[in-house]
Amino acid sequence: MNTLIIYTHPNHQSLNYAFLEHTLKGISENESINELKVIDLYKEEFDPILFFDANNKRSDMHIDPKFAAYRDQILWADRLVFIYPIWWGRPPAMLLGYIDQLFSTNFAYRNKGKYSHEGLLKGKSAICISTMKGPKNYPLFFLNNAHKALMKKALFNYVGMKKVKFFEFGSVERSREKQKPKLEKIYNYFKALPA
Amino acid sequence: MNTLIIYTHPNHQSLNYAFLEHTLKGISENESINELKVIDLYKEEFDPILFFDANNKRSDMHIDPKFAAYRDQILWADRLVFIYPIWWGRPPAMLLGYIDQLFSTNFAYRNKGKYSHEGLLKGKSAICISTMKGPKNYPLFFLNNAHKALMKKALFNYVGMKKVKFFEFGSVERSREKQKPKLEKIYNYFKALPA
Repeated sequence: MNTLIIYTHPNHQSLNYAFLEHTLKGISENESINELKVIDLYKEEFDPILFFDANNKRSDMHIDPKFAAYRDQILWADRLVFIYPIWWGRPPAMLLGYIDQLFSTNFAYRNKGKYSHEGLLKGKSAICISTMKGPKNYPLFFLNNAHKALMKKALFNYVGMKKVKFFEFGSVERSREKQKPKLEKIYNYFKALPA
Repeated sequence: MNTLIIYTHPNHQSLNYAFLEHTLKGISENESINELKVIDLYKEEFDPILFFDANNKRSDMHIDPKFAAYRDQILWADRLVFIYPIWWGRPPAMLLGYIDQLFSTNFAYRNKGKYSHEGLLKGKSAICISTMKGPKNYPLFFLNNAHKALMKKALFNYVGMKKVKFFEFGSVERSREKQKPKLEKIYNYFKALPA
């Protein structure tokens, strides 16, 4: 199982970074995961701003050499792990810009007629680990589960990725001591994750 | 009524730009709207990437001199008009990054205790004009209305903006001839919009 981690948080002293470390620790102790790549979008200064016009066509995005290495990483991976905070009910602009730039027509999906399409990333799975300031049930009760709808239905399922697992952790501003069980949960999950 | 338009689309040949033009035309013929400012986030090369760490604190965002002029525009406005495409069920990373950078604690809202807060942009209203490739009922039926939940509940209502109006236009890849009634609708709306 080739595993690609896409990490999105500006601060390496953050709880998000601790989640990355615990993910990596679990993976390092899991014999079924041999191949691993990690993208740190902030550290790599990823350009999240999709641009197109009459001369730079959006329909050519899937062959833009600027993102060839990032496309290869996605094609290589069997499993995509996203680690990010929830800001305003959804992932940060940086991660959504990675999606805008990478999940292009004829790379992530192909149009079939006017309103039909075929996902081109079939067989891959996704795991989303996210943190938020408020209580963890807030998005479910007050936002129609918008975060999961966007990531699972609008994105992953659309491009053919059917298997999607979410870990949403709330109340992240409590003491680091109180975050320990959450970090342990992620460590144990990746340690035991089957191929 | 001071009106601020926040326009987000890379291509000035787009249908989104036609919506901007029809908005401006309607406003120019509306005697109750005298004061108008327009932000074109792509053209202004707005930096949408929120960065913070131990030395650059997120709690100081609301006084970051880099965005002082943008904060002043929001404070000045009685009405915010957002024009943008829907990509993957939500606004482009550029607009969401504008939100990440501008709607900061102690500018857009103030925390009161652990889970309570007060919106600081009370009394302002928002109008969102958005376009999408698919049929216009797709987000309602398949995405739990995620786009509106994020913009209205997670963002505008949170910062105290109670009055929010949406125009969601689907099937944008049809001929420009077929888009005319949509453009006329926006022109007429802004022409007749009361103070």
